[in-house]
Amino acid sequence: MPKPVPTQQLIDNLLRGDRLALSRAISRVEDDAGEAARIVQAVFAHTGKAHLIGITGAPGTGKSTLVSALVASYRARGETVGVLAVDPTSPFSGGALLGDRVRMTSHSGDAGVFIRSMATRRGTGGLAKASADALLLLDAAGFDRILVETVGAGQAEIEIASVADSVVVVEAPGLGDEVQAIKAGLLEIADIFAVNKADRKGAARTVAALEMMLETGGAAAQTIFHHGQRMEAGAAASEIDGRDGWPIPVLETVAVSGGGVAQLRDALERHRTWLDESGARVARESRRLDHMLQTLVQAEMLARMERTLSPGLRSDLVDRMQRRKTDPYSAAADMVKKLST
Amino acid sequence: MPKPVPTQQLIDNLLRGDRLALSRAISRVEDDAGEAARIVQAVFAHTGKAHLIGITGAPGTGKSTLVSALVASYRARGETVGVLAVDPTSPFSGGALLGDRVRMTSHSGDAGVFIRSMATRRGTGGLAKASADALLLLDAAGFDRILVETVGAGQAEIEIASVADSVVVVEAPGLGDEVQAIKAGLLEIADIFAVNKADRKGAARTVAALEMMLETGGAAAQTIFHHGQRMEAGAAASEIDGRDGWPIPVLETVAVSGGGVAQLRDALERHRTWLDESGARVARESRRLDHMLQTLVQAEMLARMERTLSPGLRSDLVDRMQRRKTDPYSAAADMVKKLST
Repeated sequence: MPKPVPTQQLIDNLLRGDRLALSRAISRVEDDAGEAARIVQAVFAHTGKAHLIGITGAPGTGKSTLVSALVASYRARGETVGVLAVDPTSPFSGGALLGDRVRMTSHSGDAGVFIRSMATRRGTGGLAKASADALLLLDAAGFDRILVETVGAGQAEIEIASVADSVVVVEAPGLGDEVQAIKAGLLEIADIFAVNKADRKGAARTVAALEMMLETGGAAAQTIFHHGQRMEAGAAASEIDGRDGWPIPVLETVAVSGGGVAQLRDALERHRTWLDESGARVARESRRLDHMLQTLVQAEMLARMERTLSPGLRSDLVDRMQRRKTDPYSAAADMVKKLST
Repeated sequence: MPKPVPTQQLIDNLLRGDRLALSRAISRVEDDAGEAARIVQAVFAHTGKAHLIGITGAPGTGKSTLVSALVASYRARGETVGVLAVDPTSPFSGGALLGDRVRMTSHSGDAGVFIRSMATRRGTGGLAKASADALLLLDAAGFDRILVETVGAGQAEIEIASVADSVVVVEAPGLGDEVQAIKAGLLEIADIFAVNKADRKGAARTVAALEMMLETGGAAAQTIFHHGQRMEAGAAASEIDGRDGWPIPVLETVAVSGGGVAQLRDALERHRTWLDESGARVARESRRLDHMLQTLVQAEMLARMERTLSPGLRSDLVDRMQRRKTDPYSAAADMVKKLST
């Protein structure tokens, strides 16, 4: 086995834009055998320059193909692009091996593109931490644009994309338009809607449905969604994110042929300008860093829990619960007490 | 405003199977203004009797319709059914108002059915806690079967269904079979596959693809999925869950017409018998309670964090991060230190 590259050398090379060093550094923060902190601490001062673009949507919308087309579009203008795919169905992450991956081979061998997949199977907190780390490393490595692709179903996955500077929500006709369209989580985080597969039947209807909801200021959609439910985020979110004042465009794309992709790229550029001019960019970075801070504190508390507790205590508590000698809340209180002392 | 019902009275009525009390109790554990612990503690001794069935699958597979059909099937045999829908696209949870809901109205007015939706927008940990609480309440209220429906994309959502006694993974043709089929998360948790919309083109191919993967012992699927990724759970999971020795059936259903639903119910019955005879039922309850314990401890640690920290500290740390005066890991370490002292 070759000797592992010293961490400092890895950091130096990463900051010079070395792709292999970047790849290795991401692996090390993913493994998180204590090196994540050191690497992120060393590169953090060099972050904050890239345009971070979140792309999310339900499985079947073709968002991976759209990501690939967007990469090509940026490359045609000479911009460098980093891609982080945390969607289990993404060709980037190895999910859809049986077809879509072929499309990405067009980028292989292009030094201006770096693609990294991330397994979603690491527990929710772990995924949030690993992806936040990886995005900082991509940023420090100097990419102009960083695309983070996540599946738009699943609270944890949506959150990862939602903390980007610009969020593209991908829809498609024929997937049960109404069902997709009123997904509150996606409606609330979108800066741009891309109705992909726009050459298919029903695309106009999907566009119309989205535009109608946007016209009513999201109020109609929210009312529908409030039905019988409690919704915390909603109204407050737009204030925090500084989404007010940005007219959300609904674009049509046909990713497989590249149709509409230049328009999507242009819309992203307008959004970036708006972010800078309105001050929303600062607000979003603040939210992103706050989110990361929470994630890290939570991870540390959990690690501390693992270290502190005797191995038998947890299984003993579960055993007592099964015999109905205690209940989950009392057992949890016992554990917390042991942690505090 | 009417005076709220005292908690003890609510608990007593819930344990007698009173539907209104159950509904109110779930609302109180959801709000979790300190009453969740008291209610769960009071009813926990009465839990562990129901057959808990998790039903998950990608959006568009028709799993909500299948849930509805399964409810009807159990009712036809005189069994009582509780449903917890945590899928944002489910008609039960108010997601798909524009059509599917109609199907559920057939159960309204039936005292043997109780349907409860749960908003997914409460942060990942909050959803896990609220759903675990609600399932215990449904169990204590005496339902024979409890169905928990979650969208099968999103780690947190999948986890909620995966801790059931019996897990049904719903597939459908025409959704990009390959993409759906190799979703590692769903493959690993399935006790029964239901290929819904089996009257559609491609159903046989979906069934064949699933059966092929099951024949190779999941090894092929796992190998595919390991590609370029780290996968922790995999092999270990089947041992812990006691899934070994249960031959996973792949059934065809047409939920809208009720086709194949009796067979699904029968397969669930066989699985329940197997759970009891193999001892897997105890193993699964153990895992479920351990999961709940973790969730509660985590929630308590977070709540403690909120209580302990001065309001300004967090925003101050974020501000210093934005000016690159500190980094996320150092900021998190600062916060953890403050929490410990």
